[in-house]
Amino acid sequence: MHGEIITIGNELTSGRTVDIDSCHAARRLTAAGLQVTRIISVGDDYEMVSEVLRKAVARSSFVIVTGGLGSTRDDMTTAIVSKSLDRPLCLDQQLLEKIKTYARARRIRITPSLEKMAWLPQGSRILSPDGRACGFSLVEGEVRLYFLPGVPEQMRYLMDEVVVPEILSLYKGIPVTGQRVLKLYGLSEPEIVEIFDGYLEDRGDVEFGFYPNFPENFITITLKGPEEHAVTKELDRIEKEVWQLLGANIFAIDNETMEERVGLMLTEKGLTLSVAESCTGGLVGHRLTSVPGSSGYFQGGVVVYSNRSKIELLDVKQETLETYGAVSDETVREMARGVSERMGTDLGLAITGIAGPEGGSEEKPVGTVHMGLATGKEIFSGKYRFWGDRHKVKLNASTMALDWVRRYLNGDPFLPGV
Amino acid sequence: MHGEIITIGNELTSGRTVDIDSCHAARRLTAAGLQVTRIISVGDDYEMVSEVLRKAVARSSFVIVTGGLGSTRDDMTTAIVSKSLDRPLCLDQQLLEKIKTYARARRIRITPSLEKMAWLPQGSRILSPDGRACGFSLVEGEVRLYFLPGVPEQMRYLMDEVVVPEILSLYKGIPVTGQRVLKLYGLSEPEIVEIFDGYLEDRGDVEFGFYPNFPENFITITLKGPEEHAVTKELDRIEKEVWQLLGANIFAIDNETMEERVGLMLTEKGLTLSVAESCTGGLVGHRLTSVPGSSGYFQGGVVVYSNRSKIELLDVKQETLETYGAVSDETVREMARGVSERMGTDLGLAITGIAGPEGGSEEKPVGTVHMGLATGKEIFSGKYRFWGDRHKVKLNASTMALDWVRRYLNGDPFLPGV
Repeated sequence: MHGEIITIGNELTSGRTVDIDSCHAARRLTAAGLQVTRIISVGDDYEMVSEVLRKAVARSSFVIVTGGLGSTRDDMTTAIVSKSLDRPLCLDQQLLEKIKTYARARRIRITPSLEKMAWLPQGSRILSPDGRACGFSLVEGEVRLYFLPGVPEQMRYLMDEVVVPEILSLYKGIPVTGQRVLKLYGLSEPEIVEIFDGYLEDRGDVEFGFYPNFPENFITITLKGPEEHAVTKELDRIEKEVWQLLGANIFAIDNETMEERVGLMLTEKGLTLSVAESCTGGLVGHRLTSVPGSSGYFQGGVVVYSNRSKIELLDVKQETLETYGAVSDETVREMARGVSERMGTDLGLAITGIAGPEGGSEEKPVGTVHMGLATGKEIFSGKYRFWGDRHKVKLNASTMALDWVRRYLNGDPFLPGV
Repeated sequence: MHGEIITIGNELTSGRTVDIDSCHAARRLTAAGLQVTRIISVGDDYEMVSEVLRKAVARSSFVIVTGGLGSTRDDMTTAIVSKSLDRPLCLDQQLLEKIKTYARARRIRITPSLEKMAWLPQGSRILSPDGRACGFSLVEGEVRLYFLPGVPEQMRYLMDEVVVPEILSLYKGIPVTGQRVLKLYGLSEPEIVEIFDGYLEDRGDVEFGFYPNFPENFITITLKGPEEHAVTKELDRIEKEVWQLLGANIFAIDNETMEERVGLMLTEKGLTLSVAESCTGGLVGHRLTSVPGSSGYFQGGVVVYSNRSKIELLDVKQETLETYGAVSDETVREMARGVSERMGTDLGLAITGIAGPEGGSEEKPVGTVHMGLATGKEIFSGKYRFWGDRHKVKLNASTMALDWVRRYLNGDPFLPGV
């Protein structure tokens, strides 16, 4: 069973907004074993949207349309559907009440433009399980059409609660598609390809995919079969083989993130962590605290941009800073020990480096970053060289820092530095 | 002049990767006055890519294709182009050398799969101004085709350095399109619509767009004209009128971000800032330090998740925490003063709240966040209620915190709380 996703909005075709809606919808549908053949973004153009919609209906089992359902003048999805499919707009009193309830709960004033949203094409079924979000669906011949708001939160909610379960119940008996994602940090794409190439010969109906997700690399294993249990078992077997090839470089499976993995390991071992960040500027703390429940193991940290703050908040010695500089193994070791002692945590993680674009030198070019980890018994440190702009250096350094904690807790050696 | 963008990869249609490439390409082309009519994502499917490519060529002046140029087995763009446009693949010795040079510089091993990338469809022109990235272009009848790597950094580099300048030089004499983006924080979409509705009547050829970019809202003003200077002048005039309607809620224009605006204002006034973060977990520090040169005004900060760290690092009184709780005006005021004194900065910004999903109560539900700002003379504090999941509460709270600094430096009142 295959279908298409259409996302509407000038903000998409003019590149002002990244299309995260369609990504979420595609992920949910693929995970459920359905195939998305195309994702098409078009502007708020009456004729163009009509054409794309008609063509998608002609070649799909289902079509999901997001965007253009809001309260502003350029929201014209309902008008386009009304015209294209010859269904007059009708006021839906029930929907009007839902919109009013939703707006009141969020302290949004009820304006005529909000009320416009309650006029839907004839034959529409409202998708709004509990008033938190409103979309609608239509049946056109054999094809199911779903129209969802472009607001990511609302769109995701309706996809998960209504659209995917409904499509699945309609298309029972299709072959099951199983997929597993193995997430790697520490090998380049060509290195992964080289390790893998022999293994890939004659894999039959197993499909392998590779894609970079900076600074990580993902490997996907996809498998079709008539029955879920057998597919899962075969995926388990293949996953095991891939682990044997790539070992400690695999940090997580499927949707798990590096920060979730680290959090889980700290929780399992009953250890606490604090972080001293220089060039990452708070990104490591932000990533750690993006995980619900992180307050159980993450005690906090310091962002020490200036030398003064390194001395004041972390007891780094003036002498160390003067002799070796702020970006050095010696400084990062004192930072790691300082933060773990000040915060009273089992582990103290420290990062200092040059994110650029300014501040580099011949000896210490932009991208030079030192990692430190104090464990109570020992202090580890290492030096890396990252590539790319300020954003990439920060991101890569934050992943390396989290990966240090992961490898330490796993008993694996850290990635080799420079 | 209009064209289409095609992005290739199973990672896109299965929703494993957000399509940021096409967003960047569309933004650059739109900013240059060209129109992108559609953005189409298709999987690594030979037939599907061929079909989409042929149709795009038939209805466009230019087609930009990203992805499928890498070294892995599912990278088959060159093979598809070769077949679809009947151009055999030829080994390009010059490109092979460039790939080798690039790989050596980044310490990537040179493997046979890397060498595969040097085989291009006959008639291809290599796009690689200095070896940092490699793509190729073809002329098919009247249509220009550009094939770029899907790696965002390389794709952007080639778009900016080669593709956009070349397309622009080919289509001279087209009407100029001017666009301005006004970024707002603090009004809901219906509130903006209401303020705006009267103003929007009879605006002739000026096009207004609205779109949410959580937690911000953007207004775009688009205008076409025969000559750049006149378009810019008219945009200036309209922008002024919109400022009069929305005033202090506009925090930045065009590509400027909230953190860049705050950084610029601090620099202009010669003031320094430090930050004490609880529920935002480092996000405010990360955002501030994402701006190059931020070390000039941002001294650092602390991430104080535990009560112990609030006392130890910020001198918050035990008594205050016991009497009012960690999430209170009293605590946030002591945090703001504490961080500014410890770090020796002119301003001290503090955030404490409940990001969820756990930790809420009837009196202090999830989403309750207190802001504090110490200015040396005064300490300000306020309480807000944010909606959504952990990620949204953190993001909204970090924007509100930065907006506090902006409004304080502007002499504007803070947004009303609860």
